[in-house]
Amino acid sequence: MQRPNYPSGKDLLSADAVSRFDLDDIMERAERHLREEEMEKAGHALPEPPAPRRRPKVIATLFDQRSTRTRLGFQAAAARLGHQSIDAYDTDRNRIGQTTGESIEDHIHTVELYSDLLVVRSHMEDLPYRVGRLSYLPVINAGNGADEHPSQALVDIFAIRQMRGPIETLGIALSSDTRARFAISFVKMLKLSPPKRFTLCCLPDAPLNPAMREAMTVLANLGTAIGIVHDIRQTLDHDVLSIQMQDMSKFAHAALGNEAVDKEKESEPFTLTARKILDARSDTLILNPLPRFSELDTSCDSLPNAGYFRQVQLSVPMRMAILERMLLGIPWTGQADSFPPSSGG
Amino acid sequence: MQRPNYPSGKDLLSADAVSRFDLDDIMERAERHLREEEMEKAGHALPEPPAPRRRPKVIATLFDQRSTRTRLGFQAAAARLGHQSIDAYDTDRNRIGQTTGESIEDHIHTVELYSDLLVVRSHMEDLPYRVGRLSYLPVINAGNGADEHPSQALVDIFAIRQMRGPIETLGIALSSDTRARFAISFVKMLKLSPPKRFTLCCLPDAPLNPAMREAMTVLANLGTAIGIVHDIRQTLDHDVLSIQMQDMSKFAHAALGNEAVDKEKESEPFTLTARKILDARSDTLILNPLPRFSELDTSCDSLPNAGYFRQVQLSVPMRMAILERMLLGIPWTGQADSFPPSSGG
Amino acid sequence: MQRPNYPSGKDLLSADAVSRFDLDDIMERAERHLREEEMEKAGHALPEPPAPRRRPKVIATLFDQRSTRTRLGFQAAAARLGHQSIDAYDTDRNRIGQTTGESIEDHIHTVELYSDLLVVRSHMEDLPYRVGRLSYLPVINAGNGADEHPSQALVDIFAIRQMRGPIETLGIALSSDTRARFAISFVKMLKLSPPKRFTLCCLPDAPLNPAMREAMTVLANLGTAIGIVHDIRQTLDHDVLSIQMQDMSKFAHAALGNEAVDKEKESEPFTLTARKILDARSDTLILNPLPRFSELDTSCDSLPNAGYFRQVQLSVPMRMAILERMLLGIPWTGQADSFPPSSGG
Repeated sequence: MQRPNYPSGKDLLSADAVSRFDLDDIMERAERHLREEEMEKAGHALPEPPAPRRRPKVIATLFDQRSTRTRLGFQAAAARLGHQSIDAYDTDRNRIGQTTGESIEDHIHTVELYSDLLVVRSHMEDLPYRVGRLSYLPVINAGNGADEHPSQALVDIFAIRQMRGPIETLGIALSSDTRARFAISFVKMLKLSPPKRFTLCCLPDAPLNPAMREAMTVLANLGTAIGIVHDIRQTLDHDVLSIQMQDMSKFAHAALGNEAVDKEKESEPFTLTARKILDARSDTLILNPLPRFSELDTSCDSLPNAGYFRQVQLSVPMRMAILERMLLGIPWTGQADSFPPSSGG
Repeated sequence: MQRPNYPSGKDLLSADAVSRFDLDDIMERAERHLREEEMEKAGHALPEPPAPRRRPKVIATLFDQRSTRTRLGFQAAAARLGHQSIDAYDTDRNRIGQTTGESIEDHIHTVELYSDLLVVRSHMEDLPYRVGRLSYLPVINAGNGADEHPSQALVDIFAIRQMRGPIETLGIALSSDTRARFAISFVKMLKLSPPKRFTLCCLPDAPLNPAMREAMTVLANLGTAIGIVHDIRQTLDHDVLSIQMQDMSKFAHAALGNEAVDKEKESEPFTLTARKILDARSDTLILNPLPRFSELDTSCDSLPNAGYFRQVQLSVPMRMAILERMLLGIPWTGQADSFPPSSGG
Repeated sequence: MQRPNYPSGKDLLSADAVSRFDLDDIMERAERHLREEEMEKAGHALPEPPAPRRRPKVIATLFDQRSTRTRLGFQAAAARLGHQSIDAYDTDRNRIGQTTGESIEDHIHTVELYSDLLVVRSHMEDLPYRVGRLSYLPVINAGNGADEHPSQALVDIFAIRQMRGPIETLGIALSSDTRARFAISFVKMLKLSPPKRFTLCCLPDAPLNPAMREAMTVLANLGTAIGIVHDIRQTLDHDVLSIQMQDMSKFAHAALGNEAVDKEKESEPFTLTARKILDARSDTLILNPLPRFSELDTSCDSLPNAGYFRQVQLSVPMRMAILERMLLGIPWTGQADSFPPSSGG
């Protein structure tokens, strides 16, 4: 079969894929989907859909790491758009990577012919990149090992803009293992709208992940005031705090990919409680990629600071926007590599 | 996130949720869906759908008990309405209730943000009630331990009305373990249109389940002639007989929830055969919630009495009616508790 | 329940179900779906759908053999048509064939009431036939033991017509275990448009499968020049070569059904490489039902001869055509038995 030329910018594999222009477009799309959701809940009629009949699209998910919310989130977003999902990487059933199975290349070349867009999650950093090069379809990296999770970063940016306004006017703190993929994508994405202030809250004696260091240097060069602290209390004067566990290497199966994490206790300086928020008289917006562990106490849930469930809610229109844009074939115009960091690309 | 006030009556957790007014409405809706099905099969054009564009809805199923027909039934009903289902409680994949997982509260608060209605089946009696209190979405109890299974009761009532006419004119018999959840919901639901006669066929020495006793007392107070017999032959002069196994406690995994039942033999007085029906010259309509075991011999299948597959067929328009009504936000106006019986609420 | 009379010709269980008239109709339908796909990819508006509102249809898959591409292929085809699939034979969840489960008869009589069409794959040759007799719904045999796989044969014929033109003008070779179900259906289907030449490439000392022998005799009687060779090189002057492994009995779990096959090496005379194609200056179109094993070297993939991924792509409009036709209730008018060969029917 004559393979079509791959359009440049077809994939969302890294935060680097997204330009400022793309960011504005995707936020507008997400806002439109959010507005339609609110109109419908209020009982208003929706504007008519675009006139021409279109065949429903098929979204294929290829996940070799367990996932609840990312998988369900993309399934729900596809359903809202009138499309359907197929599960093309069900380890119970298929044969990829088994001794008796077919090659990953043949599997991808088959699945791409049944579908219109691929969503890949893997414990292997290079898999989404391999799939992106193998397939002419648009590919979303929904988390690859300890590398990136760019669609989550778009959700986080959207959530901050909806709940606190333009990023450029804000002080933003991040409390996380600096190797966490959601954290790397988030800080990289911030360069498109650099906050006034960015503070990293991390273990005092843990080495800073090079990708995180580089992303912070980029922010500094763009004029963001950068800080590093080692106690969550020192972030509670910021407009936004995104918080997750500090040491993900304690978690056997997690592979820094926020999966199947032991119920280890977070150490006290990195644990957020209602008490700390109230003591600081803080109005910091709290985000969390969920699932949460002991770093974010449920006592916070009833405070107006708690933004993490609204963040989940906003993930639906954002995932709809991502799918819609990519299914229309609109390229990402950022300066993304075609290779993951580990391959030196 | 500011949680909306929960509308009263949003959930279908118990037969008590349904008022006579609700029953009439739901039967009309189910009849309309049945009529459309028949029109389509006959090659007629369907009436146009309501004008305004609506986004497809997402039905989330959370089942921690195995189920074939209830799950497929709700999936099929959602599909017929143009909606889609997501499986939000796949024990192969997700992490609820595992030591490494997130709390049930966080899981529900996430799933509700991806979907429009929750269908819960559990071996735990209190789970659908907990989910109903946790979520602002409408929740259907699709079977909870030894408590209730109200959507099945609506299916049964619909089947009787379609095949034998108004309940108030009929003599109805039930042969079942009195602890079976479908049986409890069914007898409770009968109070909305009390039959002329109601006969329970049960083991002579088994204690009567208190919930069943209470539901029968309610019927008696409404004027229904109540009887108790211990041989299936004594029910064959009724208009309707709903039959299931007598002693579900023999079934290791069943938890009275008609799942994964051993192929134990039903004892002779409670086994229905074509021979018994023919000997009695009976025209009793036979219902069975399925799957059936030895209580209902396949020799009955070719008799005109056999109503159990038509009952399955009628479950589709009824489940469509339930989903449609609840997705429109129409409240159930019965006098339902917010707590399961075991919690004393 | 009064069961409707089964319409004759409702099922696609064997290549024998398909008449020449049916073949022409199904090819036209597949071409229309292919054309719409190409129009949409080119950005053109599609013609309006037929006017009357129709309820989305439900396709039930019942697979007791593992499958990736057949299952995903039918799911994708259903989705493109605006329909949905339900998985009615998930061994993780349901109870068919387990000691505690319900009978296959009861299960089929339930699933048919939730759906509009059944797709059955089984290691048991008689299962699709049993399902076809049990259900009034149209049933597709998606592979039954070592018997047939007729929808794959329709895909193969469609692929050859699209890539090489009318079958009657062509020389076609098949290199395969003669017991492979896709091979049997393919050669049987060829009688509807007999090629000028048909050559079987097989092991020199393996007995010829009687069904294959009979299908080849039919072709010979229709005027096709028949040959048998034992080296793949001798097929490279044909217009088309469909190739698969020679000895499927080496594969423990395969049951001749191309599932879960060991990575055994094909012996040299039956292995196709780019070198052999180039040495023969061959322009033979290469097909493969996929997954492939060592019989088809990946060196062939970049040659213009490689037709196997285009074959996968063409499987989508063909499966849409099959579903569309059968959902419309159009009967197959070939001379199909109602019983599998092993039952002597």
